[in-house]
Amino acid sequence: MISREEFTQVKEETLAYFKKANIVLTDEEIDRIEVADFGLNRINEFGLQLIEYVNTERCCAKDLVLLPHQTCPEHLHPPVKDSPGKEETFRCRFGTVYLYVPGPETTNPKATIPVDKQHTFTVWNEIVLNEGEQYTLEPNTPHWFQAGEEGSIISEFSTKSTDENDIFTDEEIKRIPVVK
Amino acid sequence: MISREEFTQVKEETLAYFKKANIVLTDEEIDRIEVADFGLNRINEFGLQLIEYVNTERCCAKDLVLLPHQTCPEHLHPPVKDSPGKEETFRCRFGTVYLYVPGPETTNPKATIPVDKQHTFTVWNEIVLNEGEQYTLEPNTPHWFQAGEEGSIISEFSTKSTDENDIFTDEEIKRIPVVK
Repeated sequence: MISREEFTQVKEETLAYFKKANIVLTDEEIDRIEVADFGLNRINEFGLQLIEYVNTERCCAKDLVLLPHQTCPEHLHPPVKDSPGKEETFRCRFGTVYLYVPGPETTNPKATIPVDKQHTFTVWNEIVLNEGEQYTLEPNTPHWFQAGEEGSIISEFSTKSTDENDIFTDEEIKRIPVVK
Repeated sequence: MISREEFTQVKEETLAYFKKANIVLTDEEIDRIEVADFGLNRINEFGLQLIEYVNTERCCAKDLVLLPHQTCPEHLHPPVKDSPGKEETFRCRFGTVYLYVPGPETTNPKATIPVDKQHTFTVWNEIVLNEGEQYTLEPNTPHWFQAGEEGSIISEFSTKSTDENDIFTDEEIKRIPVVK
């Protein structure tokens, strides 16, 4: 788990991204911004900041912030009960995002991963999302993403989000709890 | 139907709103911005401009633009086949939106409607959405909305959108076709 000091620092940076992109949040939303370090305690390498706008039984919307070169680790959204699993669309609002999905391995990918964690990244088909570009992921599809040097803001439009069901490739990862 | 000249003018104004709010669209998206005049040919009074980012069987996301005091007429999203109908969340990104839903009639509402169309607006419970504020509408709920004097941008997060099923209170309205 990250420290309170790290949390405060990362949250300040996150708010600066939202401000730069003219994304207005209410005070209540600012209070509940999530900083996910996935239990790895390496927030500047592996982490994700987000605000969840809505998450009903039927649909969900979030804005995600990635710091420069920060990586959301590889995971998938499996079928749960009557649902085929979470479907999600990532739309890049600011900066550049490198998204990796199953398919032919990209030669010279833009993202880099620390050597000790490379074995936990198994899909290397690169999709580059610049501002205004988006990609829709079917349920049960392994994926991961990393911001470019400016960091990035990503709007996520999806079906119901149930983070506790996400399956990460890295067995060291714990998605829950996050610091709020 | 609005004229080509009106369409071009309204589309230019719409693009200016997106630019002001730092919302980046691809050229392909700019080409398919919709201007809906609901067949009334009174675009500055009754109309809606929008870009649909995604609309799958399960979820949908759009950004809507309203010109100053422009009104999206009263309608609802009924159950269709196996679906209870479209659920939608409106999040105000820019300006102010006056949203009207069933409930106690608001005294001195902010929105005004031309006299000849007042009989087509039956719900008057006012919800004011300033930047960063949002409201979730259950399916089958009559609603309408009008922008304040600055106009507004609204992000809409919803289940699948099937405009052809929408039911408008004003029988003169035809939602489809829109000009693209």
